[in-house]
Amino acid sequence: MHRFAGELYPICRSITGDGIRQTLSMIGNRIPLTTFEVPTGTAVFDWTVPKEWNIRDAYIKGPNQKRVVDFKKCNLHVLNYSTPIRATMSLSELKPHLLTIPQNPDWIPYRTSYYKEDWGFCLSHNQMLALKDGEYEVCIDSTLEDGHLTYGECYFPGQSTDEVLISCHACHPSLANDNLSGLAVATFLAQLLSGRDRRYSHRFLFIPGTIGAVTWLARNPEAVGRIRHGLVLTGVGDKNRFHYKKSRRGNTEIDRTAAHVLTHYSESPEILEFSPYGYDERQYCSPGFNLAVGCLMRSVSASFPEYHTSADNLEFIHPRQLAESLRVCALILDVLEDNRRYRNLNPYCEPQLGRRNLYRSTGGESIGADINARLWVLNLSDGEHSLLDIAERSDLPFVAIRDAAELLFENGLLSVVAESSAREAKPNEVLPPDISPGQRNMGRRKTAAHSREAR
Amino acid sequence: MHRFAGELYPICRSITGDGIRQTLSMIGNRIPLTTFEVPTGTAVFDWTVPKEWNIRDAYIKGPNQKRVVDFKKCNLHVLNYSTPIRATMSLSELKPHLLTIPQNPDWIPYRTSYYKEDWGFCLSHNQMLALKDGEYEVCIDSTLEDGHLTYGECYFPGQSTDEVLISCHACHPSLANDNLSGLAVATFLAQLLSGRDRRYSHRFLFIPGTIGAVTWLARNPEAVGRIRHGLVLTGVGDKNRFHYKKSRRGNTEIDRTAAHVLTHYSESPEILEFSPYGYDERQYCSPGFNLAVGCLMRSVSASFPEYHTSADNLEFIHPRQLAESLRVCALILDVLEDNRRYRNLNPYCEPQLGRRNLYRSTGGESIGADINARLWVLNLSDGEHSLLDIAERSDLPFVAIRDAAELLFENGLLSVVAESSAREAKPNEVLPPDISPGQRNMGRRKTAAHSREAR
Amino acid sequence: MHRFAGELYPICRSITGDGIRQTLSMIGNRIPLTTFEVPTGTAVFDWTVPKEWNIRDAYIKGPNQKRVVDFKKCNLHVLNYSTPIRATMSLSELKPHLLTIPQNPDWIPYRTSYYKEDWGFCLSHNQMLALKDGEYEVCIDSTLEDGHLTYGECYFPGQSTDEVLISCHACHPSLANDNLSGLAVATFLAQLLSGRDRRYSHRFLFIPGTIGAVTWLARNPEAVGRIRHGLVLTGVGDKNRFHYKKSRRGNTEIDRTAAHVLTHYSESPEILEFSPYGYDERQYCSPGFNLAVGCLMRSVSASFPEYHTSADNLEFIHPRQLAESLRVCALILDVLEDNRRYRNLNPYCEPQLGRRNLYRSTGGESIGADINARLWVLNLSDGEHSLLDIAERSDLPFVAIRDAAELLFENGLLSVVAESSAREAKPNEVLPPDISPGQRNMGRRKTAAHSREAR
Repeated sequence: MHRFAGELYPICRSITGDGIRQTLSMIGNRIPLTTFEVPTGTAVFDWTVPKEWNIRDAYIKGPNQKRVVDFKKCNLHVLNYSTPIRATMSLSELKPHLLTIPQNPDWIPYRTSYYKEDWGFCLSHNQMLALKDGEYEVCIDSTLEDGHLTYGECYFPGQSTDEVLISCHACHPSLANDNLSGLAVATFLAQLLSGRDRRYSHRFLFIPGTIGAVTWLARNPEAVGRIRHGLVLTGVGDKNRFHYKKSRRGNTEIDRTAAHVLTHYSESPEILEFSPYGYDERQYCSPGFNLAVGCLMRSVSASFPEYHTSADNLEFIHPRQLAESLRVCALILDVLEDNRRYRNLNPYCEPQLGRRNLYRSTGGESIGADINARLWVLNLSDGEHSLLDIAERSDLPFVAIRDAAELLFENGLLSVVAESSAREAKPNEVLPPDISPGQRNMGRRKTAAHSREAR
Repeated sequence: MHRFAGELYPICRSITGDGIRQTLSMIGNRIPLTTFEVPTGTAVFDWTVPKEWNIRDAYIKGPNQKRVVDFKKCNLHVLNYSTPIRATMSLSELKPHLLTIPQNPDWIPYRTSYYKEDWGFCLSHNQMLALKDGEYEVCIDSTLEDGHLTYGECYFPGQSTDEVLISCHACHPSLANDNLSGLAVATFLAQLLSGRDRRYSHRFLFIPGTIGAVTWLARNPEAVGRIRHGLVLTGVGDKNRFHYKKSRRGNTEIDRTAAHVLTHYSESPEILEFSPYGYDERQYCSPGFNLAVGCLMRSVSASFPEYHTSADNLEFIHPRQLAESLRVCALILDVLEDNRRYRNLNPYCEPQLGRRNLYRSTGGESIGADINARLWVLNLSDGEHSLLDIAERSDLPFVAIRDAAELLFENGLLSVVAESSAREAKPNEVLPPDISPGQRNMGRRKTAAHSREAR
Repeated sequence: MHRFAGELYPICRSITGDGIRQTLSMIGNRIPLTTFEVPTGTAVFDWTVPKEWNIRDAYIKGPNQKRVVDFKKCNLHVLNYSTPIRATMSLSELKPHLLTIPQNPDWIPYRTSYYKEDWGFCLSHNQMLALKDGEYEVCIDSTLEDGHLTYGECYFPGQSTDEVLISCHACHPSLANDNLSGLAVATFLAQLLSGRDRRYSHRFLFIPGTIGAVTWLARNPEAVGRIRHGLVLTGVGDKNRFHYKKSRRGNTEIDRTAAHVLTHYSESPEILEFSPYGYDERQYCSPGFNLAVGCLMRSVSASFPEYHTSADNLEFIHPRQLAESLRVCALILDVLEDNRRYRNLNPYCEPQLGRRNLYRSTGGESIGADINARLWVLNLSDGEHSLLDIAERSDLPFVAIRDAAELLFENGLLSVVAESSAREAKPNEVLPPDISPGQRNMGRRKTAAHSREAR
């Protein structure tokens, strides 16, 4: 995963344009990905798909004609979405267009101007202090024109059409933790899932932040209605402990699953309440959707100094942490997959486990953890408690509870309670009223030529 | 407020009589006050309006004919409501009628005998120890005769007939914190309110403790049914941190409002659970009424040594603390007034704040507190959450949330949810069955000649 | 109680046989006990009543023909339920049949083999280490044949047929805390109850662990349906603080009662959540029954080193601790008996307690604890709150609340709210479907010849 992040690192991504297209193409080399192109000007809820931005070069040349700021060295140097410019100006005219971080004077900030047409350069504070008076040549060789917004989907059908959503933003340029780590973990998680039997259908989204989520939600009302659980993945490569931010509803199955998995399988995780600032959970948890979507991170956005600076580089993320994040994600999906309800077929008193070789034979000694898990499953399997409920109440790991349930089931002591697909229905059932049928299929669907399915 | 408390301090108040009349007259010089006179013998629920007590002088003269205890020096010296007496007796006959506080031997206790006819003197323990054997002349020049119980109301109509109640006991003689502080703060709070547009109607009660509340509740069933929120004000002048005692229901809007305001605008407040001992919240929260009425204090009754002693004097209360208490009360009323529900008109995803100049224009930086408040309001304004709900969940001050809501409303992003007056209906809707229509209007209503409205 | 435990100590009890018969006989000398005999082979839910086990002697003779392990010295030496054997074998052949506790090398373990036919000896680890190579004579003079399972009931009818259940396991041989302490406390508790007026009917069960509870539950569906509150008593003689393990439902009246009594009348009790491992609450709280039955202990099973070893002897339990346990049990039953609901007949404002001599006559002083309890009872007696609810909310001892309620009732200020027998109905109302009417009365009922009722 770290190597894959390294391959993606140099690309100058933005919310539209060839950077994200190239990124999706490289993801599509690893998992079956379908990409979508939505035209500039498309209305998506309160928003409009913006113009497409592409950039070839950008620099500031000093009085000595040398490049003092050079996009080719680091793509963060350009204010992302800058309009084209080619001009000569004095330092004092230039300065209002220079963005720095005085408190971390060696780092280049990552800044954008998506929704207000503007141009600018980001550079280290020390770089700026070193600029001397004189005439500067400024060049941003970009285009901002009608085009498309591009995003990718990887969909694995399951026994049920109910969906688990994994969503990552794929619009940041050379920033490693935010969010190449999320792209890498999601890509490898999709690989893990591809070979499996699945109860739920799973959908992975690789989208530009905010406008991508808005666009996807506006164009896919039917899929939205099938989402049962979801996870936004971001910032999962640094060395911090895990942070899980709950969905707006706060006690959904994904919230409880993430908390359970992190508590049992990671060190000192922190479970955060929902807040409406952060990543694309802002859109999934907007009041009209109110989906059961949380956000898995290590370091929380805007809470670490390297956030949105050149210091969020490939040295800030680590193979070991990426691997742990992948493992935690896989465990979360496992719990969702296996979280069934059973019914104890001998609800009056305990069944006699001894004669089924499910108990220790010599009485008087304490029981082991495996027998304890069996007793918990039998006691709480009244058709109401799910395995996750039992794991939570017993404070045993889900896997121990699930294994006990499977053993008891094999021994004829439990029956499976039929799933109601309305089990955790989302509270907002009606379709967004302001989406016309036409709008729903507006973008042209383009099956990625490079997808595995196509090969 | 401290000066006003100083003016009221020398008056010998009791639950009936000219002391409370004079006090109400002085309050009526500042705010529009209507006073009511309820005749002795009037049945009010399980109680009967008592005889009216008035006192001119009282003393104990020692063997040397000098006044050793003198009502003219301090009106606490007389057991409040003492029957008249004029007699000569030995020290040993006198002693059962002397009340002191051995553990604070320099302080005079405040004691009463309202409901058992008796006489007595309160004095410092050291004063009592200095009394020598001999004959003492005892005089209490009081009257205890049929008359009236007097109380005052200040009513400000609002857009709604739903009421906010502010209640203070006005029956204690020379005691500053308990409760001249409450009278002063309530009077100034009424002044603040008088010039404002009001959503709720507001009613201020200045009443004798217990019997006054019982009498008012018995005589005003219609008004009782309109009380949505209420606050008993007492002990708000000393230097202690704030204490708010919740209503019996425990999670009403006034309880949450007081807790929110104190937490955000005062130092280390303490929120106390309801208990049936205290001030007139005992009556408002009796099970038949069960009103949403809490009690705001600094020091809690009976928990500080100066309580009900001569040490609760004008030096025990302070202008700064009174001003803070007034500010907190005003903030509480502000929250109640402004605590509306809104509906986000773009519930599907966030609306695009940027094109309305409601977002920062350069992306990549963290958002400020004002934008954060807007996101919270948008996310939770689903018609269910009130602004107080949002302030609580976001842990932001109510004012920040309210200002954000007003700005979003002005920008057409929110609609106001129509108020249902049954929003926080009290659980006991039926009128007290034992109040006959006649009894309800029994007292003669007397518009205070000195009220502003009458001038 | 300690003396009684001492009398029971030498008997070699098991889940069937003459040991438990003799034990029940000695309990029946003290309280009116009915014993029941259920034939081997009787189907009880998923279980079958096992063969009856009796033992006369058992030993291992060493090469020198001396008894090196002797059942006559300590009945723990035999693996309980051992099949008969008489054989000579080498030490290496013998060793797989020897059970010890290496970490406590001087103690003899208590071990059983109820449900797998086997034989063995339990001995101290040091004893085993001292065994030298050679031929050993092994003798277990036991019988394991068709017979009966025996248990005892002591039933006291009350005004209501609703029942309180006290259940003890009576199947352990020479183990003092687990569970002669439980038998002794339950026996004396029954004595205390026998002379009283009772609201509830009370049933004491003295049964073999697990199979006894399963058998009783299978044979008594009507009685099961009448159980409102229950307590398993075990391990109540050692010096540990009290532990109460809640019922599966977790907030039943018995759970709250036990927590209240222990909190107010014992030092640092610990209230434990339900878990499905422990004593016969496992059966009472199986999902089909889900009864309001908790478990009162001092040391928790399997959590102290002496558990199920020869160190759980008469010196491990103490007269003072047994007496405290009896007192706590009696208080718990008292609370259940007296936990009524009242209705304040003057719900509008406080009634005037002063004129009924239920208040202090001199105002201005603080009120005492007795008046405080009266105010709480009046304030919360709205027909909904029980006395236990009031005790919990006021944090006053139940007895103070009950005494206040009785005084107020005598003064005409409260009425009693009629009990609904469905007040705390158990959630599983249907009878176990797999019990045929015939099975219910299968065992022959034998009124103990030695019961007091019979004398």
